[in-house]
Amino acid sequence: MEAAVRTLERDGERDTVAVEEPLEIRVDGEPVAVTMRTPGHDEELALGFLYGEGLIDGPRQAGVTDDLAANTIEVRGPLARDLPARRFYTTSSCGVCGKGAIEELAVHCQTLAPGPRLARELLAHLPDRLVQPGFARTGGLHATGLFDAGGELLCVREDVGRHNAMDKVVGWALRAGRVPLSQSLLCVSGRLSFELVQKALVAGAPVLVGVGAPTSLAVQTAREHGLTLCGFARAGRVNVYAGEARVG
Amino acid sequence: MEAAVRTLERDGERDTVAVEEPLEIRVDGEPVAVTMRTPGHDEELALGFLYGEGLIDGPRQAGVTDDLAANTIEVRGPLARDLPARRFYTTSSCGVCGKGAIEELAVHCQTLAPGPRLARELLAHLPDRLVQPGFARTGGLHATGLFDAGGELLCVREDVGRHNAMDKVVGWALRAGRVPLSQSLLCVSGRLSFELVQKALVAGAPVLVGVGAPTSLAVQTAREHGLTLCGFARAGRVNVYAGEARVG
Repeated sequence: MEAAVRTLERDGERDTVAVEEPLEIRVDGEPVAVTMRTPGHDEELALGFLYGEGLIDGPRQAGVTDDLAANTIEVRGPLARDLPARRFYTTSSCGVCGKGAIEELAVHCQTLAPGPRLARELLAHLPDRLVQPGFARTGGLHATGLFDAGGELLCVREDVGRHNAMDKVVGWALRAGRVPLSQSLLCVSGRLSFELVQKALVAGAPVLVGVGAPTSLAVQTAREHGLTLCGFARAGRVNVYAGEARVG
Repeated sequence: MEAAVRTLERDGERDTVAVEEPLEIRVDGEPVAVTMRTPGHDEELALGFLYGEGLIDGPRQAGVTDDLAANTIEVRGPLARDLPARRFYTTSSCGVCGKGAIEELAVHCQTLAPGPRLARELLAHLPDRLVQPGFARTGGLHATGLFDAGGELLCVREDVGRHNAMDKVVGWALRAGRVPLSQSLLCVSGRLSFELVQKALVAGAPVLVGVGAPTSLAVQTAREHGLTLCGFARAGRVNVYAGEARVG
């Protein structure tokens, strides 16, 4: 937790903010990605990110680089597919790749089985079980939680980037041998973008719950791939936008 | 507005969500970037994005492509610098480039003059003046507003991506001949990341106000470059994290 927050002076008083620093992800020495993230669980972040992009198909060795370069994580190959040759910028809140990602999703995502079946009330109260110590101290961190089908919290991660928080959870699950997440629920503290739906689908999670609103493309993608997508989960209520068959 | 929201059926009722679709930005026919954005003001988005990256140094002609390809904006050159040759992924909430962006900031950002001087109360109430019709209907859009030093709203844009909303405002200002924004204030509906500070600095805005929390790197960067950074602007209060000399 202490690497995730920092104390600074403001108006002569002490204040706590969420830490944001760049992390470079390398595979076998080759730089693959840079993300602005909150330090902590960096190996999980790297693995979860690479898995979400279809670049690895299972856990890999990961650690800080030999030269101890700050903020760099080195992952051992092999890669499941070649790195794309694009030289695109991909702007923030982007799903990393936009058009390409939408086309590629059918290739990488798991086929979701029909279950599990869940009570609407359980889904509505999932955010209440999302422990967020960093947010409590800074107001500046997003969280993703992984729950079992009974609503028991298995893992929670916080990050300034909502996508990083989910990558960290998926990375944790990869190492724990829990991917595909076919009997698990993902819950996020914020809104539901295409990118989060994409990451949930690739990890094989049948249910994604968010405290905030979904986008049109998040709903469309969830419906096309059979994901149960729930938004505005707050105050004991929840909206089900896709995959209603699992709820009731 | 109508392109920005979409109505869908949920639980047998009608519901409104924010639209999210990919936009490809091309310069003289060459694809440069893809972003997941809310349709509308796409030319402004393209220009603001390219300006924030230091790729253009003023307004350029921009419009839909000749082949009428959906969701593509073509911008006419010349570019102010070469496109970087990197083949990095850059993950979301990333500042597009992370490490590189931090190093390049000193090159691209404007030198901020000391003024203007602003009442704390004006800053605290700026979010109240941020008109957000799309958010009111969907709960799923971020907003950026541009204000003059008297607190008069000049331009507001909404988008599923907080960075896109700011890019659209900067693109509008470029076309209106208002960049650098040396006597203007930027106000965002959410949190304050490094990337938003970066975009404000490159556009020459001396003040950035947010409803949410700043990150450590947002505060550090604002302090290094003389930007007035205000967070948690709500309920008539505001925290000033950097550039206090303009406030009082």
